[in-house]
Amino acid sequence: MNYIAIMAGGVGSRFWPASRSHRPKQFLDILGTGKSLLRMTFERFLHIVPASHIYIVTNAEYQSLVLEHLPELTPQQVLCEPSRNNTAPCVAYAAMKLRGLDPDANMVVAPSDHIILEEKNFLNFISQALDYTASHEALLTLGIRPSRPDTGYGYIHYGAAESQGIHPVKQFMEKPPLEQAKAFVASGEYLWNAGIFIWRAETVLRAFEQFSPDIYRILDAGRSEYNTDREQTFIDQAYPTTPSISVDYAIMEKATNVYTIPSSFGWSDLGTWASLYAELPGDEHGNVTTSGQVVASNTRDTLIRAPKDKLVVVDGLDDYIVVDEGDVLLIFPKSKEQDIKAVNARISQQYGSQFS
Amino acid sequence: MNYIAIMAGGVGSRFWPASRSHRPKQFLDILGTGKSLLRMTFERFLHIVPASHIYIVTNAEYQSLVLEHLPELTPQQVLCEPSRNNTAPCVAYAAMKLRGLDPDANMVVAPSDHIILEEKNFLNFISQALDYTASHEALLTLGIRPSRPDTGYGYIHYGAAESQGIHPVKQFMEKPPLEQAKAFVASGEYLWNAGIFIWRAETVLRAFEQFSPDIYRILDAGRSEYNTDREQTFIDQAYPTTPSISVDYAIMEKATNVYTIPSSFGWSDLGTWASLYAELPGDEHGNVTTSGQVVASNTRDTLIRAPKDKLVVVDGLDDYIVVDEGDVLLIFPKSKEQDIKAVNARISQQYGSQFS
Repeated sequence: MNYIAIMAGGVGSRFWPASRSHRPKQFLDILGTGKSLLRMTFERFLHIVPASHIYIVTNAEYQSLVLEHLPELTPQQVLCEPSRNNTAPCVAYAAMKLRGLDPDANMVVAPSDHIILEEKNFLNFISQALDYTASHEALLTLGIRPSRPDTGYGYIHYGAAESQGIHPVKQFMEKPPLEQAKAFVASGEYLWNAGIFIWRAETVLRAFEQFSPDIYRILDAGRSEYNTDREQTFIDQAYPTTPSISVDYAIMEKATNVYTIPSSFGWSDLGTWASLYAELPGDEHGNVTTSGQVVASNTRDTLIRAPKDKLVVVDGLDDYIVVDEGDVLLIFPKSKEQDIKAVNARISQQYGSQFS
Repeated sequence: MNYIAIMAGGVGSRFWPASRSHRPKQFLDILGTGKSLLRMTFERFLHIVPASHIYIVTNAEYQSLVLEHLPELTPQQVLCEPSRNNTAPCVAYAAMKLRGLDPDANMVVAPSDHIILEEKNFLNFISQALDYTASHEALLTLGIRPSRPDTGYGYIHYGAAESQGIHPVKQFMEKPPLEQAKAFVASGEYLWNAGIFIWRAETVLRAFEQFSPDIYRILDAGRSEYNTDREQTFIDQAYPTTPSISVDYAIMEKATNVYTIPSSFGWSDLGTWASLYAELPGDEHGNVTTSGQVVASNTRDTLIRAPKDKLVVVDGLDDYIVVDEGDVLLIFPKSKEQDIKAVNARISQQYGSQFS
């Protein structure tokens, strides 16, 4: 059977001040559609599995937020991490829980906070991937055909197709400098690493056992606890002792049965305000308003987000981000948006958790 | 006896979006002191007259706001104009009402929305003026010794003192171009026209009778109604028929018994955001915050006003006004602040009265 594990534990600090530690990006209506990113991710997967087969892995502090956004779920479908240990322990936990429910569990691991504009294409690629992993001992990751030499993404170097559009992964590449990114795109042999994985629970756990034995051992010690009322107690004790490491480092870069499907479905990881700006249509001066009433003069290439009923009057801004989040107002050059994470850290130091 | 008539009917549209038609500037804590400008004006005059001798002339729609800000007053002390007819009818109405109460009423007419930093000096000049008008048939206006060639103020050309610092006014001058303003200041013979008047009610009404007989006739028709429960009914019917004209045009520029006291008391009419900026101390980069928590980088000469608990993070602004008023956010070049009145008008057209 097919299952979905949506990872919804991130803090999205580059999306501050919209994203806060108590209500991060995946719980926000970042696009102004009326639905949170998590809700949109959930509804997208409802086209291929019933709600009862969708699990959310999140930080314990967001449990009630998840259930509020996804009232179709039972609390048993919300996996609560007691600590932030990066993605490898998170994936291993989800796989072990699903293996316990269904030894043949075939699963998608997907972020909760990306945008996907071409839903039909996405669902086709996911279905193709699930069909493949159901019958192959493969670790599959969807790779996005790059539309530009983006230096903010990791890349996948892939080889010739082995079957039905399934390509072996030669190598994962870290975020490259611009010249290298240009060469990657020009070669046609590289894809963006979107962090969307498809595999059977058993397959990925075999990879953990081999390449990340610490994580496997610590979490497998609770094999008899998963899907019982002792699960959370076990996780609360064991999970924080796992090494904090990404699933890419822990298994994907080491395993030899890693495959990708070159895909295209209007994807963005929506990592920063600029990436949001890039995805949305602007007016004739390149200004994008996600919410709020805006009266702009002499203003170009500026992203404005404000409470729905708020009037924002701007004059003379060029390439700015204006984000009004009720208790925080950010007016920041878009080209410096990488600094927002640092600004957020500085504000935490100065004001404590009040605005973070 | 001495009385004060505070004029509090203006709309302060150049202070939008802080100043709104339903709660204009005089009702706001513009300086961040915890008190509205009206309240500060009222308390200033309490040093020379009891609360029972202070009258507020305002637009009917602000009656309850006035009483909320000045709970010491009775409703009979709040004169409600049913229409906006500029300052001449307003002054005539106040003078007739006070003449009815006290034929010897000696009065100050003062705006409600100016700032006065040197209260002691101000009160001394006011007392000196009241002493003079009590015994002289004089229309007296306080003139401010100019500290700079401001082109936003009208000027008073004054002559040699006739007695105790009381100088005859030779001429009122409209807001001058810069070169003329410089010459005015250099000559030492010009003062800023602050719109603060002192006279006996009988004196100013005699001037109205002579130089603005329409206003006099219309409002004097209700002589028997003032200070009775028929006053408001009379005013509601008569007041809107008066010509809309300023007290300067109506009588001051025509009368020959006009005098001034060259004064200095840290005065600003606080007409615009830039004038507020000029009055307040800035940090080492010239940034002024009247309220809100501000974290500024690469930002200079910028005025920031936000709700008290709001965090405002700005980067890269030079000579801006940032005003966050809850339902409206204004980000505007300070040098273009004369345009704010026009922006406000445009927004009224587009959104109706919602944000105006």
